[in-house]
Amino acid sequence: MATITVLGAGMMGSAWCVPLLDAGHRVLLVGTHLDDALIEGLAARRHHLTLKLDLPEALEPLPLSELPRAVAEADVVGLGVSSAGIDWAAEALAPHLGERPVMLITKGLEWDGEQLITLPDRFVSQLRTAAERGGQAAAPGLAPVAVAGPCIAGELARRVETCVVMAGRDPELTRRLAAMVRTPYYHGFPSDDLVGVEVCAALKNAYAMGIAFGAGLHQAAGGEPGSVAMHNHESAVFAQASVEMLRLVTALGGEVASVVGLAGVGDLDVTCNGGRTGRFGRLLGAGHSVSEAVRLMEGATLECLAILEIMREAVPRLEQAGALEAGSVPLLMHLWEVALQGAPVAVPFPRCFAGLSG
Amino acid sequence: MATITVLGAGMMGSAWCVPLLDAGHRVLLVGTHLDDALIEGLAARRHHLTLKLDLPEALEPLPLSELPRAVAEADVVGLGVSSAGIDWAAEALAPHLGERPVMLITKGLEWDGEQLITLPDRFVSQLRTAAERGGQAAAPGLAPVAVAGPCIAGELARRVETCVVMAGRDPELTRRLAAMVRTPYYHGFPSDDLVGVEVCAALKNAYAMGIAFGAGLHQAAGGEPGSVAMHNHESAVFAQASVEMLRLVTALGGEVASVVGLAGVGDLDVTCNGGRTGRFGRLLGAGHSVSEAVRLMEGATLECLAILEIMREAVPRLEQAGALEAGSVPLLMHLWEVALQGAPVAVPFPRCFAGLSG
Repeated sequence: MATITVLGAGMMGSAWCVPLLDAGHRVLLVGTHLDDALIEGLAARRHHLTLKLDLPEALEPLPLSELPRAVAEADVVGLGVSSAGIDWAAEALAPHLGERPVMLITKGLEWDGEQLITLPDRFVSQLRTAAERGGQAAAPGLAPVAVAGPCIAGELARRVETCVVMAGRDPELTRRLAAMVRTPYYHGFPSDDLVGVEVCAALKNAYAMGIAFGAGLHQAAGGEPGSVAMHNHESAVFAQASVEMLRLVTALGGEVASVVGLAGVGDLDVTCNGGRTGRFGRLLGAGHSVSEAVRLMEGATLECLAILEIMREAVPRLEQAGALEAGSVPLLMHLWEVALQGAPVAVPFPRCFAGLSG
Repeated sequence: MATITVLGAGMMGSAWCVPLLDAGHRVLLVGTHLDDALIEGLAARRHHLTLKLDLPEALEPLPLSELPRAVAEADVVGLGVSSAGIDWAAEALAPHLGERPVMLITKGLEWDGEQLITLPDRFVSQLRTAAERGGQAAAPGLAPVAVAGPCIAGELARRVETCVVMAGRDPELTRRLAAMVRTPYYHGFPSDDLVGVEVCAALKNAYAMGIAFGAGLHQAAGGEPGSVAMHNHESAVFAQASVEMLRLVTALGGEVASVVGLAGVGDLDVTCNGGRTGRFGRLLGAGHSVSEAVRLMEGATLECLAILEIMREAVPRLEQAGALEAGSVPLLMHLWEVALQGAPVAVPFPRCFAGLSG
């Protein structure tokens, strides 16, 4: 039994505590400054307000003020903050983390003006900067393990059978953590392809938006949901999304197995079934302007917009550097034209699938 | 403008006539001996009884007795019979086909006791046998082009935007036919990977059955449809299905691009959305026995059972021959244990994703 301290008490961070507890560990869940109401609800009666679910009695919810103690007691630290909170989390953890292993369920990519950075790498560089500034040890061996794959928080919290990939740059640590979190319903599979896994995890939000266009177009045409709708359109976008994820992952040094697996097509599939991104894509497909669609989403975080902003910077650079053939991600370009530049939805199918023998 | 004669007036064969007509061709649709009622409905008022839709006035529906004339007038012959009808179609066409190019929307694999045979290859060998027996020319240059990818017939007949892959062994002919069928909503992309495309097209029926287990398990547990269900389970199966399709396609000499594209993940995705296979998988996931599930399907053709029978023969041979690593398709093995041997649904996730870095 280990003590695992999770920082971030949102839906996914909190849901993740369920298998960690079931795997036999002591689990301390520390809220960020945005999570006060969630932590109060958990402290009072173990009820999570946004998951709308009671979590196990054994969970130890703690306010942010308790972070130093919670990290001091931890064998492993888990990060469950949003991707926008990664720099904040590095600052908050820097004085306390030491050499403790870190698992991240926070996923994403950043653009530093020159290149794409995975969130684990961003976390490490921010942590080192903060630690050096504070005169602490700079965690020289830190190799965070990223958790990705098809995982809807509300299902994980209900112990629905779930498979995730756990990717890191330290093969021994990656395998040890994957074994540590395993339960009969939560299966963590180790991977050494951190780049491929993170690129898939970030891109799937953008592409899931595009897959949902078909349902919106169908709705706008007066169609009812059902087996005759615009599934041919949706699945053609799904296929082209997979093709482009493979091209981008390969261009960035990742592996085919990450695309053809949990982090790639698996997470893409589940993202089409659950939640915000699909709803946003349907609204755009139905003809709403971006600003209308954003308004109708009532303040929900739209990761798809962030990754499209980043890829609009990164793709021309990758093409200039010769890592990516020009014109090889026409769907992604259409997605940023629609979501960032207000272009109407009209997937450029004749420019898709080209250059592939399939 | 060409004259295209399509044999087989079922839902897919008939729906396919819509883009062929819209591409500017003369289209003759010849029913098999099973299609008399369908052809009568079409002849009377262009209404297709099972598509429940009026087809274009320009379509020329013909009974089987008109096959010799319809083939004689054709520039290209299209096959729209069921996979079980492929030998019959070869016999029927042998005396008339000559050197005319053939497109098949009929998909599948057969097992000849020694190896897997794609349906286009089966068609050619049966055609040659029949032609030689009848003293006709044995079509020495015949290289049929297989049409695959995500295509629900009822959507194609309603001109929903659809992308298909057209795969053959004659690159020039494949590209010529892909160009010939193109319309603003029907996009045919040429491929030279006939084996990879046909293996994906056959396997997707089996794997889509397994993806649907999650919805059945959820239903059996008293769950309502919605975004919190067993999507994590479904998408993990989707990911493992993609992994295994890649292993099998590679073992048989096909290409990654066919799996990561329209014939692979694209068709797998659409098969989960439309129709019979998904319904059958849900019934099994909900705990019905195979015989109950078959009865509840009321006689619908279940391609998934046929391909599972074939793969149960083929996989041990591929392993013995060293083309496939032992134990590398645990999901497929579970699917045949469930659907052919009556085992309960319990996807062996711990044995999945192994041997891959992702």
